[in-house]
Amino acid sequence: MFDARPIGIFDSGVGGLTVLEALTQRFPHEGFIYLGDTARVPYGTKSARTVERYSVQVADCLLRRGVKGLVVACNTASALGLAALRAHCPVPVLGVIEPGCRAAIGVTAAREEPGRVGVIGTRSTVSSGAYPYHLAMLDPRIQVLSLACPLFVPLVEEGWVDHPAVRMIVEESLTPLFAQRLDALILGCTHYPVLKKVIAETMPGVALVDSSAAVADDLGRYLGGVIRTAPPGQTRRLEFLVTDVADRFKETARRFIAGVEAEWVEMVDL
Amino acid sequence: MFDARPIGIFDSGVGGLTVLEALTQRFPHEGFIYLGDTARVPYGTKSARTVERYSVQVADCLLRRGVKGLVVACNTASALGLAALRAHCPVPVLGVIEPGCRAAIGVTAAREEPGRVGVIGTRSTVSSGAYPYHLAMLDPRIQVLSLACPLFVPLVEEGWVDHPAVRMIVEESLTPLFAQRLDALILGCTHYPVLKKVIAETMPGVALVDSSAAVADDLGRYLGGVIRTAPPGQTRRLEFLVTDVADRFKETARRFIAGVEAEWVEMVDL
Repeated sequence: MFDARPIGIFDSGVGGLTVLEALTQRFPHEGFIYLGDTARVPYGTKSARTVERYSVQVADCLLRRGVKGLVVACNTASALGLAALRAHCPVPVLGVIEPGCRAAIGVTAAREEPGRVGVIGTRSTVSSGAYPYHLAMLDPRIQVLSLACPLFVPLVEEGWVDHPAVRMIVEESLTPLFAQRLDALILGCTHYPVLKKVIAETMPGVALVDSSAAVADDLGRYLGGVIRTAPPGQTRRLEFLVTDVADRFKETARRFIAGVEAEWVEMVDL
Repeated sequence: MFDARPIGIFDSGVGGLTVLEALTQRFPHEGFIYLGDTARVPYGTKSARTVERYSVQVADCLLRRGVKGLVVACNTASALGLAALRAHCPVPVLGVIEPGCRAAIGVTAAREEPGRVGVIGTRSTVSSGAYPYHLAMLDPRIQVLSLACPLFVPLVEEGWVDHPAVRMIVEESLTPLFAQRLDALILGCTHYPVLKKVIAETMPGVALVDSSAAVADDLGRYLGGVIRTAPPGQTRRLEFLVTDVADRFKETARRFIAGVEAEWVEMVDL
């Protein structure tokens, strides 16, 4: 009744490692294969058609390696590619949008007035409308304000996290949300939690929703059900695949995750 | 003795339009097909192997459309892919590195002491060593200081050009060059001329070298020689190809070029 096969997790680059860290902490016996499509990062500026095509190629690579389920850690790929991936893959596919929306609804549920939720993400994630759609499914009264913050990803990728220029860019980017009396702000991109401190100081009194914990909850619901758990006591197996420049992946990975060492990184062609 | 076929020009995205503008002004009767690999931009963070592979795919697409010569406007593709492209293509291939180096040498030639030239570019361009190599070929005494400025491309792509945060990022990025008494600074990326004003104010007394004019000189040397000129009086033909999101290409193109309207943009699969 157990399944020793690993779970696939994919992102356009390194950002999804924040999700991987949450999953490895919650499920210490499960194996994971992480694939970062570093040759084609970023996804957040690409069209739906291109993101869909790239996502399916990544999924095929992970399926060939025998994964028993797939976690789409990238918000853009979840927003634009999830339907295609679910149609394509013979294993369960989890995205990050729905869990993030559930976590945001959890914040607003106690309010008497309709909740007010902000969503920040890449240009492609925001223009997909995936967050407003899923939030409305969970609570039709909810007010949603979406905002693309396209500079946050390059700032994080380049390690500009606590610099006065970053503070200025974050403040100016979030200005449209200041007067909106938000209850919660969804960090709708795996890179944004790295800027959490600056964002929190810029948006005082607003609950920040980082979906990685919510994704772990979701995977918990699948495991033991449609995805069988690993044999108890199985020694964890972690593999890292990238599509370009393995060295830089390791370096950037260090900025993202404390608990996972990406020592062995394999380069693959999709 | 004439050749009505167009000249191909390629870049990872929109940056090469600064080069296209210089070429269309200098050669009003030549036709050009511009290809921006917008699905896979940026090239500047990718490995030599990947940039080479992508460059050859782009060249094949332009060759299928019958170009009589190829201008590699992208500095990263010129730095990492030029040898492969010249081996692969049956038509003459021009890059931007050598012309830029010649222009910089022109600035330093009058000095009695060995010239001191700075080069800023993407991480991949800088780590390729292509600029120091070509500068040393032209003047073995020259002192070269190279510096990667990886945030400049996303700032320009997102239209952050004249903001105080941009000034802070430019100043902090260029700090290692301040004490170097440079004669010239090569803007070794097609995006950087857009930040010329801020860079000039940050590096007073240093001649900024923008290679687009130098590339036009180079093409002038080829035309009439290994590349035949267009029939006199030929009406200019301009075509634009992109690999993703044609609409955004048009919008960003407006920020780059005054003289060329990218009204018709075709999307291609490589």
